[in-house]
Amino acid sequence: MDTPIWNKTTTVIKVGGAVVEDPEQLATLLDAFVRIDGPKVLVHGGGRSATKLAAQLGIESRMVNGRRVTDAETLKIVTMVYAGLVNKNIVAQLQARGCNALGLTGADLDLIRAHRRPITPEGIDFGFVGDVERADGTIFQALLEKGITPIISPLTHDGQGHLLNTNADTMAMEVAKAQKSSTLTFCFELPGVLRDPTDSATLIPNLDEADFHSLVNDGTIAGGMIPKLQNAFDALHAGVCSVRITSIHDLIGGTLITP
Amino acid sequence: MDTPIWNKTTTVIKVGGAVVEDPEQLATLLDAFVRIDGPKVLVHGGGRSATKLAAQLGIESRMVNGRRVTDAETLKIVTMVYAGLVNKNIVAQLQARGCNALGLTGADLDLIRAHRRPITPEGIDFGFVGDVERADGTIFQALLEKGITPIISPLTHDGQGHLLNTNADTMAMEVAKAQKSSTLTFCFELPGVLRDPTDSATLIPNLDEADFHSLVNDGTIAGGMIPKLQNAFDALHAGVCSVRITSIHDLIGGTLITP
Repeated sequence: MDTPIWNKTTTVIKVGGAVVEDPEQLATLLDAFVRIDGPKVLVHGGGRSATKLAAQLGIESRMVNGRRVTDAETLKIVTMVYAGLVNKNIVAQLQARGCNALGLTGADLDLIRAHRRPITPEGIDFGFVGDVERADGTIFQALLEKGITPIISPLTHDGQGHLLNTNADTMAMEVAKAQKSSTLTFCFELPGVLRDPTDSATLIPNLDEADFHSLVNDGTIAGGMIPKLQNAFDALHAGVCSVRITSIHDLIGGTLITP
Repeated sequence: MDTPIWNKTTTVIKVGGAVVEDPEQLATLLDAFVRIDGPKVLVHGGGRSATKLAAQLGIESRMVNGRRVTDAETLKIVTMVYAGLVNKNIVAQLQARGCNALGLTGADLDLIRAHRRPITPEGIDFGFVGDVERADGTIFQALLEKGITPIISPLTHDGQGHLLNTNADTMAMEVAKAQKSSTLTFCFELPGVLRDPTDSATLIPNLDEADFHSLVNDGTIAGGMIPKLQNAFDALHAGVCSVRITSIHDLIGGTLITP
């Protein structure tokens, strides 16, 4: 007899902007994604397309610590790009591959609730940026049990009628945490965590938290990889079975993150 | 005992661009929408915002017989505006009103399948415009039985990975036809079908098909109202219980269309 799905492990894949915005890379990813057995969820970014559309419309994209400052006009742009253009193209292409995809934001079905980030102690107002309060595991469960594959764009809502721009890595972590059992894979343009980002031969196949701290201290791990790995360790501490950072060409390779 | 929902009549409301693009009118509509008892579906347009965004991006909007010629760039724009901006703002605002909204295109859950419109005998290529093949009533049923309110943006897919721009009035009709029992209300900026569009006192409270043909022949009914009313009669012939054309201020008033 088949394992009941509620005892199955959900595979959560996060895919970044560089992949979703390149038709060939996206096709490679989606081909690999549909081959994953069992319940699965795809969380996507789209920041580069948002930056491009903003520039075309004469709106400046302001980033602070890698996060987009989201005023009302920028919120419209990310809503159009993430929930519209990127999300629905992925959905249509997965349907063409026989995968019953359903594109969602956190507002749909009240799936992921957030609150607007308060002004930081340094006085930075990120605008319509959301920090997640809860992702509803019961709803994911109900969808996955019906063979539906949720495709999540990085927008949440505050329950008071406002959409909020939310970091896609964080969304993926929250989605993974909301499952009874899950693995989380961050899928991006490099083969994994590299000692030298220009040399894929320097891949670190296994990384634990002690290694992480010493590699941050000696400057080997820097920039956007730091919050990505912090998310990964948070996910492990919250009960996610495994976290992997890898490329679209090898969803079960790359760097395996362990506590 | 409550009537089982599968014996209930589904209220399908279509709301046009002029309403969804004005925050005050949209709030009025959504306040009225959430008060509707029983299962309900909202189908929305958004053409004016699409035209505006296209103009900002230097892309010309070409209309033929009131339908948008949709090249690849225009398809991106309508996907962003319809499925992203308009749809997700409605979803967030309905969630804030306690209505469990789920924003969908025809690609999500393979809900509404279409084929690309062939080049017309006059040689007009509408591009990525879809003519609906089928709307899946079983999926609507399953969602409505769970108390979920589908919010439909006017995009379909061809099952081969392509989104298709589809007329929102037609979508609403197809959605209504796919229900076991439904009423269909086209909600727009005027109080209903008027003999004189500038004078709301000339409202036609009841309109049958014979009246329709004579009013078209004498020029009283013209322009975009003709396909809207043709859709209405098609819906009635296909078994929709009633069709109404009215304003956001009176969802149970306006013009009642009868066979």
